[in-house]
Amino acid sequence: MRQPLARELTNLIERGRDRQLRLAVTGLSRAGKTAFLTSLVNQLRHAGLEARLDLMPVAREGRLLGARRVSQPDLGVPRFPYDQAMAALDADPPFWPQPTRGISELRLSIRYRPARRGLLRGETAELSLDLFDYPGEWLLDLPLLGHDYPGWSRAMLANAGEQRRALLAEWESVAAGLDPAAEANEAELANIASLYARSLQAAREAGFANLQPGRFLLPGDLEGAPVLQFFPLPALKDYDDTRLAKLPPDSVYATLAARFRHYQQHIVRPFYRDHFRRFDRQIVLVDVLGALNAGPERFEDLSQALTTLMQSFDYGKRSLLSRLFAPRIDRLAIAATKADHVTPEQHGNLTSLLEALLAEPLQDLRYADVPVKALSLAAIRATETHAVEHQKQRTPALRGTTLEGEEVLVFPGEVPSQLPEAEFWARQGFDFRAFRPAPREGGALPHIRLDAALDWLIGDKLR
Amino acid sequence: MRQPLARELTNLIERGRDRQLRLAVTGLSRAGKTAFLTSLVNQLRHAGLEARLDLMPVAREGRLLGARRVSQPDLGVPRFPYDQAMAALDADPPFWPQPTRGISELRLSIRYRPARRGLLRGETAELSLDLFDYPGEWLLDLPLLGHDYPGWSRAMLANAGEQRRALLAEWESVAAGLDPAAEANEAELANIASLYARSLQAAREAGFANLQPGRFLLPGDLEGAPVLQFFPLPALKDYDDTRLAKLPPDSVYATLAARFRHYQQHIVRPFYRDHFRRFDRQIVLVDVLGALNAGPERFEDLSQALTTLMQSFDYGKRSLLSRLFAPRIDRLAIAATKADHVTPEQHGNLTSLLEALLAEPLQDLRYADVPVKALSLAAIRATETHAVEHQKQRTPALRGTTLEGEEVLVFPGEVPSQLPEAEFWARQGFDFRAFRPAPREGGALPHIRLDAALDWLIGDKLR
Repeated sequence: MRQPLARELTNLIERGRDRQLRLAVTGLSRAGKTAFLTSLVNQLRHAGLEARLDLMPVAREGRLLGARRVSQPDLGVPRFPYDQAMAALDADPPFWPQPTRGISELRLSIRYRPARRGLLRGETAELSLDLFDYPGEWLLDLPLLGHDYPGWSRAMLANAGEQRRALLAEWESVAAGLDPAAEANEAELANIASLYARSLQAAREAGFANLQPGRFLLPGDLEGAPVLQFFPLPALKDYDDTRLAKLPPDSVYATLAARFRHYQQHIVRPFYRDHFRRFDRQIVLVDVLGALNAGPERFEDLSQALTTLMQSFDYGKRSLLSRLFAPRIDRLAIAATKADHVTPEQHGNLTSLLEALLAEPLQDLRYADVPVKALSLAAIRATETHAVEHQKQRTPALRGTTLEGEEVLVFPGEVPSQLPEAEFWARQGFDFRAFRPAPREGGALPHIRLDAALDWLIGDKLR
Repeated sequence: MRQPLARELTNLIERGRDRQLRLAVTGLSRAGKTAFLTSLVNQLRHAGLEARLDLMPVAREGRLLGARRVSQPDLGVPRFPYDQAMAALDADPPFWPQPTRGISELRLSIRYRPARRGLLRGETAELSLDLFDYPGEWLLDLPLLGHDYPGWSRAMLANAGEQRRALLAEWESVAAGLDPAAEANEAELANIASLYARSLQAAREAGFANLQPGRFLLPGDLEGAPVLQFFPLPALKDYDDTRLAKLPPDSVYATLAARFRHYQQHIVRPFYRDHFRRFDRQIVLVDVLGALNAGPERFEDLSQALTTLMQSFDYGKRSLLSRLFAPRIDRLAIAATKADHVTPEQHGNLTSLLEALLAEPLQDLRYADVPVKALSLAAIRATETHAVEHQKQRTPALRGTTLEGEEVLVFPGEVPSQLPEAEFWARQGFDFRAFRPAPREGGALPHIRLDAALDWLIGDKLR
């Protein structure tokens, strides 16, 4: 592995020469990745014209001249479907773009005027910005690299809450009867694996996020392959390692363990090796409001999922990731999305709550000296704020159109600034509605603080 | 490269030790791959019981004891969905199984009693049979490895017939205006590529088979990736190689050429390297009757597609394939499928027509000393033959149920034993109807000559 100083130097040289930056956007399903990336591209393309990017000094100072899409370097990675997303937002009525599946990429060439002009007075400069979008679920698989199959199996069965357990019940009742020492029956294992995958799907639809293995939710071309047909084995609790090591290769245990190893080597590792370790900057999007809406067990589940996910950014020297892949992300943003679904005076609380949710990983990141910023934003603002007379007080309220097409004026309630206590859940003071995007007439997409996120992520490269 | 004798020896040793055989099934879309593989597995599982396998000596002599499914060795390859296929055939009313997409695999362990008993009298033996199913369209991409981009582009535009040309017209009118020297516009290339892919899809739906690049028809996880966004460039006819070599890397020409090379290296080669060169035996299924039904241009197109496809089995020392991958297929079958759609006395003609269609590739194969057998079969028989009084003569007719559920008795007409002439097409004496599978009551699937195919493909390993 390269030393930090040498690595930093190489990076500096590479970046100085190529003027390029690889920025990755992730988040769990429904966190708002597609909306974020669409709006980001849209703002940069409208920079210098209609885009409102006052929180980016380069834009405020009139030095950001615009951006155009150019050919991406990775020919085997699907292109981020920006045009399709814009078509959805421009439709009548507008609708949210289709979520992306798997990884996608888009390259922008950004033109700007450097702040300090040296020898080349009046010259413009260009920065190649490679944007990547990938499912946060893939990062939930990182800890799987640190386990062997029995360890992973025990960990998976250890900490499921009541509602989660109920969703797994059908699978568990079948899997519990499976003898690790019995000869593997191909069709039986396929059936139990399919039950397991369906229970993961059901858990995700019910709002749970901490789901492993991540690829079971989006199998793509691997649909039906044995590598996606393993699952935790409840009966392993009665076996120690010596006994397991003696089981024959065609036993249930050995068959599932081989698939688990294949998953580690051929699914999880290649993502980190081929993509992740080449990212320079990263933003993690979190749908905090959605989890608040869904109640305590799902909120706790999100917290666990995020703690797991954030391990991919912990570059302490002894971390699993640093040992395996020497990643180089040198700046990180975490953002609570959909801030337009609460009134503006709640945005501070939203950011605080996000920080509270991520308290532990944030401490680790700061200790590892990874610069990180937390913020709340709306990539595409779908509501407007109105002051409303309510019980003789002027209160801010949101006006927007629900997904069903009903125009409403709502008081969504208060966001707690700290992790909610039992008492808070008992009150249930929430009603965050989902809104559809507002109709628009060309120009840049409306947003809240997307410019702040952008400045943190790429502003230093546009000086 | 290994010498034939050395190769043969190595194979003998490998196979002797492992007792395993890798049998691949291919064919162009709708040739009947899924039905064939489903029936093959079904017959072997019912061997020794209800299966009628009289054309296999090992079965006729009562030495074939049965087969069971075991874990497949390639964990990253989707399992062939045998259970789903059987569920479709057992439904009320029965329907044809969903076609597979991409490659799939299934391993059977076949138990039999060897004919010559030596030291181990009365012992049984086992053969591991790995079955693979993959789209014949992938083989159409082989010649692409022998071209550079300008060569491929010219070849693609050279020989399209009238109907085919009409399907490409919209794409061609746009592509013709594209200047190879102009700077590539990412969005424009994506649009033209998508037009091209759609015209390939339309051509396939219209019954054409000779379509390149094959992956454009089934993109899977690569949907939207630049590697699937190239196409022939009509304006290249005005350029020579020297002029092309001078075009800058961001030109339309250089961008498309880079994608073409990526397709060669990362899509076509890996299939041959990771899968194809490991197959021991191969059967190629051809829907001759469907092409006869579709008329002269499509029949000619099928002939061209098959000639291209068969190049993958030409192991002459100077063939592209032998130089690149040293494949080891040592026995080949080609079969006209859906023989149950014509009356039995036409089966001989059907086989002759198939041989006429493949005359040139068959000559090459015989010259290269690859054992090959042509036959006609019905993997799952959907009709019954009845003798009918017609114009005072007893004529055989077919009774079956159409896809729409209508029970019919038909005289489908005569199959020519030679390549049809213009006069034949003018007569148009054909009406091959599509039938749905017959309802069944357990037992083995009814078939025509599947046992003959099986005996040719694996019989020698069951002596």
